[in-house]
Amino acid sequence: MNKVAVIMGSTSDLPVMQDAIDILKEFNIEVVVDIVSAHRTPEKLFDFSKNARANGIDVIIAGAGGAAHLPGMVASLSPLPVIGVPVKSSNSIDGWDSVLSILQMPGGVPVATVALNGAKNAGILAAQIIGVSNETVYNAIVEYKEGLKTKVIASSKNL
Amino acid sequence: MNKVAVIMGSTSDLPVMQDAIDILKEFNIEVVVDIVSAHRTPEKLFDFSKNARANGIDVIIAGAGGAAHLPGMVASLSPLPVIGVPVKSSNSIDGWDSVLSILQMPGGVPVATVALNGAKNAGILAAQIIGVSNETVYNAIVEYKEGLKTKVIASSKNL
Amino acid sequence: MNKVAVIMGSTSDLPVMQDAIDILKEFNIEVVVDIVSAHRTPEKLFDFSKNARANGIDVIIAGAGGAAHLPGMVASLSPLPVIGVPVKSSNSIDGWDSVLSILQMPGGVPVATVALNGAKNAGILAAQIIGVSNETVYNAIVEYKEGLKTKVIASSKNL
Amino acid sequence: MNKVAVIMGSTSDLPVMQDAIDILKEFNIEVVVDIVSAHRTPEKLFDFSKNARANGIDVIIAGAGGAAHLPGMVASLSPLPVIGVPVKSSNSIDGWDSVLSILQMPGGVPVATVALNGAKNAGILAAQIIGVSNETVYNAIVEYKEGLKTKVIASSKNL
Amino acid sequence: MNKVAVIMGSTSDLPVMQDAIDILKEFNIEVVVDIVSAHRTPEKLFDFSKNARANGIDVIIAGAGGAAHLPGMVASLSPLPVIGVPVKSSNSIDGWDSVLSILQMPGGVPVATVALNGAKNAGILAAQIIGVSNETVYNAIVEYKEGLKTKVIASSKNL
Amino acid sequence: MNKVAVIMGSTSDLPVMQDAIDILKEFNIEVVVDIVSAHRTPEKLFDFSKNARANGIDVIIAGAGGAAHLPGMVASLSPLPVIGVPVKSSNSIDGWDSVLSILQMPGGVPVATVALNGAKNAGILAAQIIGVSNETVYNAIVEYKEGLKTKVIASSKNL
Amino acid sequence: MNKVAVIMGSTSDLPVMQDAIDILKEFNIEVVVDIVSAHRTPEKLFDFSKNARANGIDVIIAGAGGAAHLPGMVASLSPLPVIGVPVKSSNSIDGWDSVLSILQMPGGVPVATVALNGAKNAGILAAQIIGVSNETVYNAIVEYKEGLKTKVIASSKNL
Amino acid sequence: MNKVAVIMGSTSDLPVMQDAIDILKEFNIEVVVDIVSAHRTPEKLFDFSKNARANGIDVIIAGAGGAAHLPGMVASLSPLPVIGVPVKSSNSIDGWDSVLSILQMPGGVPVATVALNGAKNAGILAAQIIGVSNETVYNAIVEYKEGLKTKVIASSKNL
Repeated sequence: MNKVAVIMGSTSDLPVMQDAIDILKEFNIEVVVDIVSAHRTPEKLFDFSKNARANGIDVIIAGAGGAAHLPGMVASLSPLPVIGVPVKSSNSIDGWDSVLSILQMPGGVPVATVALNGAKNAGILAAQIIGVSNETVYNAIVEYKEGLKTKVIASSKNL
Repeated sequence: MNKVAVIMGSTSDLPVMQDAIDILKEFNIEVVVDIVSAHRTPEKLFDFSKNARANGIDVIIAGAGGAAHLPGMVASLSPLPVIGVPVKSSNSIDGWDSVLSILQMPGGVPVATVALNGAKNAGILAAQIIGVSNETVYNAIVEYKEGLKTKVIASSKNL
Repeated sequence: MNKVAVIMGSTSDLPVMQDAIDILKEFNIEVVVDIVSAHRTPEKLFDFSKNARANGIDVIIAGAGGAAHLPGMVASLSPLPVIGVPVKSSNSIDGWDSVLSILQMPGGVPVATVALNGAKNAGILAAQIIGVSNETVYNAIVEYKEGLKTKVIASSKNL
Repeated sequence: MNKVAVIMGSTSDLPVMQDAIDILKEFNIEVVVDIVSAHRTPEKLFDFSKNARANGIDVIIAGAGGAAHLPGMVASLSPLPVIGVPVKSSNSIDGWDSVLSILQMPGGVPVATVALNGAKNAGILAAQIIGVSNETVYNAIVEYKEGLKTKVIASSKNL
Repeated sequence: MNKVAVIMGSTSDLPVMQDAIDILKEFNIEVVVDIVSAHRTPEKLFDFSKNARANGIDVIIAGAGGAAHLPGMVASLSPLPVIGVPVKSSNSIDGWDSVLSILQMPGGVPVATVALNGAKNAGILAAQIIGVSNETVYNAIVEYKEGLKTKVIASSKNL
Repeated sequence: MNKVAVIMGSTSDLPVMQDAIDILKEFNIEVVVDIVSAHRTPEKLFDFSKNARANGIDVIIAGAGGAAHLPGMVASLSPLPVIGVPVKSSNSIDGWDSVLSILQMPGGVPVATVALNGAKNAGILAAQIIGVSNETVYNAIVEYKEGLKTKVIASSKNL
Repeated sequence: MNKVAVIMGSTSDLPVMQDAIDILKEFNIEVVVDIVSAHRTPEKLFDFSKNARANGIDVIIAGAGGAAHLPGMVASLSPLPVIGVPVKSSNSIDGWDSVLSILQMPGGVPVATVALNGAKNAGILAAQIIGVSNETVYNAIVEYKEGLKTKVIASSKNL
Repeated sequence: MNKVAVIMGSTSDLPVMQDAIDILKEFNIEVVVDIVSAHRTPEKLFDFSKNARANGIDVIIAGAGGAAHLPGMVASLSPLPVIGVPVKSSNSIDGWDSVLSILQMPGGVPVATVALNGAKNAGILAAQIIGVSNETVYNAIVEYKEGLKTKVIASSKNL
């Protein structure tokens, strides 16, 4: 069975990152959740990243705020696809810090970045990645997208 | 065999997007390249996106500049994972326009965004996505990352 | 009779977009309102845009937030003048994302962009466009501008 | 016959603004060109704006850089639709000054803003505005958009 | 007696601009206050600016928000020194619009710009300008600056 | 006779600041020029500022780049009106650093800020300040503004 | 015994700067606190900076908001290491003003800048600087970092 | 003897970082130079940081561009003071990415950040840190600051 890890730098990121966990569960994808801080638990960062593949993880979603180094460092240490979620923390400079420190990775080490606080999209993207080789998940995404459409059309009828 | 589409809004984006094509070929992944403009060929955008899966494509890389709508519109129309490359075009406001109009997608429709002009990383990310289920490609990525390391260590010896 | 369409990506944009509807009604211009999401209902976007002229619409006002592709995609699909309203949505990066992804359209496909949350001005601009060939609407705008002046002068008397 | 005025704050804006003049001529629309500086010739600004309608002008395109007040002041003085072109002048702060001082007009006085240096799109937008009531111009726009499509499709064949 | 005019685009700017009025009264400088909107009362803008010197005004303080054209247009029309106060209005893009559209005036037409919402400093600056030739006001400024010092030193004793 | 000081942090600012010197000479105003670095010659900064009035100086123009503290520190030390010129130095972050560190002075200590590299306008503003009490300089400014108008009108005839 | 000075431009900065004082006390480092305003008490700034070393101070932490000149001016006047804390004051432009006017110091006069409102990190950095030659403080930092790790690991157990 | 490490992510950062090496040598401080990439050689990053103190290093200067994680990760792994130099790399978004990803570190893990490309100041800051306990280096800094002053005063004589 496919498995996605959702990690974040601090429990204060959980309210944002929960959206990723919820949508992955909706797609019936196994999720492991952990707190891994690049700046306060660098050894755990190493262990987690080096062993992710062996632990059956297919995709890693990492959320962090401010000078957000977690997604990029995981991408440095693991060959798995890493999705970065810029979290708008308190004392952030309007979110620009998290966005730029996740997005602007150097050539050779990509992080798949989603919108500021866009954890839900990180979950969907992880599902799409799994859907490349998993027909059930692929079909769930097709259905999910149909659902989005239906809701918009319904909402326009209530205008 | 796995296949990645590399599309862009204009031939003027090709010098940037070539990096994605080159690295994918290095990973022995089949690449199809096309010009698809969201603003000038919207019907082609629809056809391309709707038929991508049926045409054997696993991942779509889309590059565009300015008010860059191509990656987001492909993501709207296809359930495949879409990687967006913000291209710094002439008359761009320092690249902010391409970055923000690709990154800040609404909940439900993710685009995996890479750095400004980061086409090479888009290619590597596509390979990592394929590597989730393709052991050969996965191993090629592991090897590629070893190569990065070797080069840095060699360069430090020449200081 | 002249007709203006006011569309938006989501019902959450309605509180902002209502200003356009209200001012158009003040000018006695017919308004059709609809929810059209570039990212969740791309087929409806196509149908709406392709048939706008045939449906008697003269000007299209489109509001959207974040990576705001609706105005630009309507402009791609319809030869009518399209007015874009950048909406400051939650999780927006201070409105920059909506502004830049509506404003910075490539050569060939203009969107007439108004200020952040400037739906009222979008309505006035649509009226001005209609006023080019409709003397009644033109005169209503002249009168409206006189009214603005009168109110400012009155307010200065109360200092 | 329909007529569009293309004005700008200085002859140094002409290389950018020429694109508007050229495309309007392609659409067979009459163009009057003038230098009107909000800051150096305020009386001319008043005269020009107050008499534009009487002089047979349907749409005004105004280009300016830096603290760009020309488009907004013309919109203050004339009930005609005004299209603003932010010009990236020397000593501009990356074009942000021109963009924001044209775009962010207060409620009541819209300026239809196009992209930084987007004079070509200003010309097309003026044509679209005229096309609302002028079938010939409308058809020319439809044809122009077809031409854009054809060129993109041709370019993709040469890849 | 010296006289300073404090004008603003709308009564909604008064809470900010009151600081200028208050500090000028503290310096015993005569103040005239008026609402002059560049965009809604352009004729009043002309009359006010053209007659300011004849009306005994020495310095003009103009406050405005968004695409703030009032200070620059007054500076265009009057040879008096003009001080611009960027006001952070609702729907402003974080104040950048007011700051840049007041500050970035073209060569030949300066506006003495103060900080965002810095009306108090505008009042002090007007007093300093008058102090160049008015010994009483000059001495009041010297005393005011001593007062600032005294307050800071007192506050440090309460730590 | 009236006198203006033009100071700057480094000789590398001279090419920009020369515009202030030149225009002041055009207005027949005496100019003293000096290099005063807030960061490298703080004692000279103190001496210069404390003695400026006694040395017959009426207005101080201070230009600096990067973290530009010179104008604000002179304003801290002298009761004279201080005009700040943000200089775009090499390694500047697009000029934002100089602009913000000159403009955003705290309540009590104003700096009259002009546009990025706007030394010419600093000179004109100094002349306008002197013109408040000096009829000859006032008339020269009136004439200068007429000259600007004449040049623009002439340039429009050559279109 | 080692001593750190924590100074700030105004008592309104104290709620932010208290974090520096608290953490330094945790490390058993002597702290002297004072209000020193670059703009309102320049003479005190001179005296404080010139005598800091003689007063037994090893490191200076200076916090300020807006056009924040305090850290840079202290660095100009004292050869001691100066740590700057950009404070996000009211009327700040999102903190950019404080950040840039502290960070972008010219060659020759460094300020060790920490994050917006990052007074706690300023305190830790001062301790690290002292730890270079003070084994007790060095060991306290090692222990502090272990504590950070322990807390993160504990928090992950409560998920 | 005191020792400073100057590390950087890539040899392409050397032209900028050389300024730190040169000024440290001027202060007769021992310098070790190495290439350590957070993203390409994470194991070397760990080894370097963990052993820095044992290897006799007192202060670490780390330069990096784009999503610059090197300084923050070294600060995560070592209790030594870490000075971060934001390097403006090609494809940087005007340097904002390097600045924000180095500056905005979370509470607990400071990086002493200097100006964009400010390697010279990083070297001086390292010397100042060493000067806290090393009288020879302290005196060299005092002398260096005198030299800055002398050069400015000499330059003002050549005006």
